Amino acid sequence: MLWKKITVAVPNDFDQEIISDIFMRVGAQGTELVDDENDNVKTKINSYFDENNYDEKILNDLKQQLKALPKFGFDITGVEVSVSEMDDSSWENEWKQYYHPVKISRYLTVVPNWVDYQPKYADEHIIVMDPGKSFGTGTHPTTYSCMQALELILGDAESMYDVGTGSGILSIQARQLGVKDIKAYDLDPEAVRAAKENIQLNPGCEDIEVFENSLLDGVEGKVDVIVANILQDIIQQFIPDIDRHLNKNGFVVLSGIINEKEALITEKMAGIGFVVLEAFHLKGWSTLICRRKEEYEAEDGAILR
Amino acid sequence: MLWKKITVAVPNDFDQEIISDIFMRVGAQGTELVDDENDNVKTKINSYFDENNYDEKILNDLKQQLKALPKFGFDITGVEVSVSEMDDSSWENEWKQYYHPVKISRYLTVVPNWVDYQPKYADEHIIVMDPGKSFGTGTHPTTYSCMQALELILGDAESMYDVGTGSGILSIQARQLGVKDIKAYDLDPEAVRAAKENIQLNPGCEDIEVFENSLLDGVEGKVDVIVANILQDIIQQFIPDIDRHLNKNGFVVLSGIINEKEALITEKMAGIGFVVLEAFHLKGWSTLICRRKEEYEAEDGAILR
Repeated sequence: MLWKKITVAVPNDFDQEIISDIFMRVGAQGTELVDDENDNVKTKINSYFDENNYDEKILNDLKQQLKALPKFGFDITGVEVSVSEMDDSSWENEWKQYYHPVKISRYLTVVPNWVDYQPKYADEHIIVMDPGKSFGTGTHPTTYSCMQALELILGDAESMYDVGTGSGILSIQARQLGVKDIKAYDLDPEAVRAAKENIQLNPGCEDIEVFENSLLDGVEGKVDVIVANILQDIIQQFIPDIDRHLNKNGFVVLSGIINEKEALITEKMAGIGFVVLEAFHLKGWSTLICRRKEEYEAEDGAILR
Repeated sequence: MLWKKITVAVPNDFDQEIISDIFMRVGAQGTELVDDENDNVKTKINSYFDENNYDEKILNDLKQQLKALPKFGFDITGVEVSVSEMDDSSWENEWKQYYHPVKISRYLTVVPNWVDYQPKYADEHIIVMDPGKSFGTGTHPTTYSCMQALELILGDAESMYDVGTGSGILSIQARQLGVKDIKAYDLDPEAVRAAKENIQLNPGCEDIEVFENSLLDGVEGKVDVIVANILQDIIQQFIPDIDRHLNKNGFVVLSGIINEKEALITEKMAGIGFVVLEAFHLKGWSTLICRRKEEYEAEDGAILR
């Protein structure tokens, strides 16, 4: 079968979620976020349409909606649209090109489910992922440094909410790091389906619960860790809910923030009584490890935990 | 025995190495760097003098030299000097207060040699340290995030230079992470002695070589990783030597840089053809993971390694 791949390339300071929204509005089933292979931090949002479901109208609608963005105050300078064709075999190769085993740290490698990967060390852990069509597998910097952060803070945590779980990878990692009670949420039913499938690929993770839900809306209860690897404007919406969902001495990990917006998020977190303890900067993106200021100050001498 | 402890408290943007230098010039045997227990990022530099070797002249000389700093362009606003007395028993308690087990990540805890610590997980590693008088054990943010960075990048590396090894902790960690050939250097003979002693406390590390040496002066050969947890002005001196001592596809980890000086180091590294891939910000300090730009760009799609 032939596929049409529409690519929107955006500069680093443009909100990718907006592009994904537009894709969905013109009829896409999902979108794929990939970094440009070059050194600059430009990101590409791809969507794939099989030839039976594609016509020129989709492309035109997309371009029209992009053109309308300046009306809403968005600067679309540097945003580029392109289309390419692929048959199924190149599709497969396309995926394989992007989704090779990814070393997150000395102790963790993410492996696509079609790769036979042998760990190099007895204490090396593996997460198996089916990249699917729309969700990352740790190769995007926001997911990558979010996983690094989880590796550094998890250990004593018993429970976690994974807000905007996408592929489910962070929940799988948290279970492997010993978190017993994990609930994952995503607004997108396709993400929920993908997360559930990936969870089944990783022994010991089967009971992680995934729900179709907008952020923590309507969620009751508290956890030891809240992780959110979503975009900065979505994180802002959700910050007011953090405090009442977090246990005493809990951690919050926020990712998906472009460096330029880090100060804004730090300020918003300060507004709810939280401090950023550590920030990771990776390819233009920031990941933040946060705690309640008061609790952190009371814990004399601790750096992170 | 009675001890005099002289403390110089410096605000975050003041170079601590200068204070250490002054301490050494007025007769100190070593200095200890500790974070203030409060939330602000003020740092204290302590030095201990036994009562037989202490007189008021030491304190006066120290104060005189501090007062002279503005002549050399240094702003000493916020620098405070204080003296306290301790007997041996309070000395011991003093250490115990600062040097409890420190969790660096899910996989690594640093344990003082007088503490009986039981790992919580089968794959949790331990580094045993004798805090000694003058060198950190992972509780200072520059060492802490440097260890985090090593955990993320080590795995394939065979060889490492540890420049300014201090307590030897980074070399011990690197060996535990599988680096076979490690050479550690320090200008200070006391550090060399302390590093050798700490190395002996950690099984499997005995053959790590420690040398009294200024940076990499006179050192021949190349390694896969160069780590330097020293201060930013010392790092600058040593940057021109990095390229010729680093194997193809090698990593450089630089720590001890205050956030405000990070851009300067990034620029100096760019000047020798290196990029900063990831930066960690912890309590006012930056730790940088660097590679050669050309090699990194050739490795299509890799984020760190």
